[in-house]
Amino acid sequence: MISSSSLLADDSLPLGFRFSAVTAGLKPSGKPDFAVSVADRLASAAALFTANRVKAAPLIVGARHLEESGGKVKVVAVNAGNANCATGNIGLAACETVCAAAAAAFGATPHEVFPSSTGIIGVPLPAEKLVAALPSVERDLAADADHFSAFSRAILTTDTRPKLAAAMLTIDGKIARIAGVCKGAGMIFPQLVPHATMLVYIFTDAAIAPADLNTMLRDAVELSFNRISIDGDTSTNDTILLLASGASGATITPSNSDFTAALGDVCTSLAKQVVDDGEGVTHVVELQIEGAANDADALKVARAIAHSPLVKTAWAGCDPNWGRLMAATGYSGAQVEPERIAIWFGDQQICVNGGRAPDFDEPRAHAYLKSREFTIRIALGIGSGQCRFWTTDLTTEYVHINADYST
Amino acid sequence: MISSSSLLADDSLPLGFRFSAVTAGLKPSGKPDFAVSVADRLASAAALFTANRVKAAPLIVGARHLEESGGKVKVVAVNAGNANCATGNIGLAACETVCAAAAAAFGATPHEVFPSSTGIIGVPLPAEKLVAALPSVERDLAADADHFSAFSRAILTTDTRPKLAAAMLTIDGKIARIAGVCKGAGMIFPQLVPHATMLVYIFTDAAIAPADLNTMLRDAVELSFNRISIDGDTSTNDTILLLASGASGATITPSNSDFTAALGDVCTSLAKQVVDDGEGVTHVVELQIEGAANDADALKVARAIAHSPLVKTAWAGCDPNWGRLMAATGYSGAQVEPERIAIWFGDQQICVNGGRAPDFDEPRAHAYLKSREFTIRIALGIGSGQCRFWTTDLTTEYVHINADYST
Repeated sequence: MISSSSLLADDSLPLGFRFSAVTAGLKPSGKPDFAVSVADRLASAAALFTANRVKAAPLIVGARHLEESGGKVKVVAVNAGNANCATGNIGLAACETVCAAAAAAFGATPHEVFPSSTGIIGVPLPAEKLVAALPSVERDLAADADHFSAFSRAILTTDTRPKLAAAMLTIDGKIARIAGVCKGAGMIFPQLVPHATMLVYIFTDAAIAPADLNTMLRDAVELSFNRISIDGDTSTNDTILLLASGASGATITPSNSDFTAALGDVCTSLAKQVVDDGEGVTHVVELQIEGAANDADALKVARAIAHSPLVKTAWAGCDPNWGRLMAATGYSGAQVEPERIAIWFGDQQICVNGGRAPDFDEPRAHAYLKSREFTIRIALGIGSGQCRFWTTDLTTEYVHINADYST
Repeated sequence: MISSSSLLADDSLPLGFRFSAVTAGLKPSGKPDFAVSVADRLASAAALFTANRVKAAPLIVGARHLEESGGKVKVVAVNAGNANCATGNIGLAACETVCAAAAAAFGATPHEVFPSSTGIIGVPLPAEKLVAALPSVERDLAADADHFSAFSRAILTTDTRPKLAAAMLTIDGKIARIAGVCKGAGMIFPQLVPHATMLVYIFTDAAIAPADLNTMLRDAVELSFNRISIDGDTSTNDTILLLASGASGATITPSNSDFTAALGDVCTSLAKQVVDDGEGVTHVVELQIEGAANDADALKVARAIAHSPLVKTAWAGCDPNWGRLMAATGYSGAQVEPERIAIWFGDQQICVNGGRAPDFDEPRAHAYLKSREFTIRIALGIGSGQCRFWTTDLTTEYVHINADYST
């Protein structure tokens, strides 16, 4: 699997899609902010949206379009710089305006257009700027890695780099490709429900029926995007879209474990890239929770730890303050028996039976926590529930970025 | 009501208690770290402890002692500098050692001693230092405002100032006094259950039966300490203790609304003082949630907002980014209909029907958010559920304080 923030090889790009990225004028920086993908023929589509009850206009419109089209998409139209959220009926109308214009430009019906927006909340979307940019989108469209890469950059906001992952596999003698891009660096605690200001677009040239695509996407997302958090803020705009063009000629069902594994790898790679590019992040932490009463309890512990400002600031200081991990475990809501808890930093045991390990070597623990990436394992000693979860530290840089965003 | 961080008048001090504060050597700073109060006669007692499933040793011992004594306390023994939490059986034994020695020193039985600890988690408590300090405690004990003030300072950790509140009222021709102290500046999201590293000690010279005292404490805490959050981290050590000496001769039952109101005022004052002294805090925010489906939903919204890093960092930047308030409201778990939401900063309406208010004056909103204290009101437009909640911003100073605590 290719997993990087750089360029794909042209032959890794799923067949059947063209890509474009232009400047519509929504980002104050003047960088490209309008990313469009057009499928040669109608693609099968599956999407998941945020669990937030306040949903941006494009999520409402996009879900309706997928329903009306029976899970078919011709055009993906993504703007960055404005989230078109908390914009009321004006926001819905602006989104429909963009979809209608894109449909007309690319020979689709409006419900075959899948819209997305990311950026500031509560500011009306200037649909006219996006509509005016459609001719240059049309001129720019191409089916090559350069344009895919440009697409991946145009959707960014506070991200410092694009995020790409891709996989290729041979199925029944035919080569099938998967390539995904995503953005997100803050307001990241995706709870994607049948659940993400994370935007993810995954393209494959396998042929997959929409219902199957939906099943495969949910399974892949549950163990990847639903297992990360930067700040615990579940966005109003999170969206994951998976499109299958069928152009490879390889037909896939959920029983094809090679394909579902590859899709899972692409999702996990993208999810970890989001965490790694989190706002102000200096440490990326893999939490391994085990011995919980059940998997749901393990996830409660992981989330409580991932969202504890005291734990996250300790990580920022490379501080082996495991007491804060104990406290977060205790208030997680999971079944906990303190005297059974064991904690490891990497391969060093820090806590045994709920107390400090006799051979706890604080300088060694401190040195381990200086790594950009480290692993913390917590065993609850109750059952066989477990999970993996990826999160970040909380730094002064995070505060700077978010105290100075709109003003 | 007296509400300040300075000295009480001697005649405001509840009768029947002596106070002392000495240096036992637990705080690296060398400041007084052992605060003791001795009741002249056994006092009625009610206590609430953290809802965290990981509870520090003194909470376990204190709860057991209250049960064994039938709600009676002679000695309150509080150390700062070490939380005696995640210390296993050694921690329980250390706590019992301190209680036994204090009992012997002050003519009590061990279960008439109420222990508390606050400070770093996971480090064994040096009970011998506290035991060795008991003779100097005994020499220092006195029933005056100076010693009460010293008590209030000795229990502090990262607090920048002591927190006191007091009330005096006349009941049946007799003067009854209430005076409380508390500490807490981080790891503050008390969920006190029949639920704080918040420690609160409230003394009254009214005569109140332990069962009544318990009822009155729960009612007062629910609308005060259970309505604040600094960082959302529910501590392993939070404790609130209310002692009634009866020395005033005024007998009180829960039906005495003057007394319960005064107790509520003391609790609310102390709770707000904790928020005001929160780690790195530059803004104190009163949230007023109304129009929720029920009070529980209103509280969900308040908590989601109070715990959102994006909201809190926006406040640090005096940034009227109300979209973040919408997002947090949306993921709070409360019943929400986005198009019914209205938001005010002070008396300025920012959001109407889920969208930006037409006359939203951003410079004016920005100016309002520059105040150290401000009010945000959110109306959900669904029902009559409501709550008040006090919280803080999240600043780079908070990160500094907590990234550098133990190392």
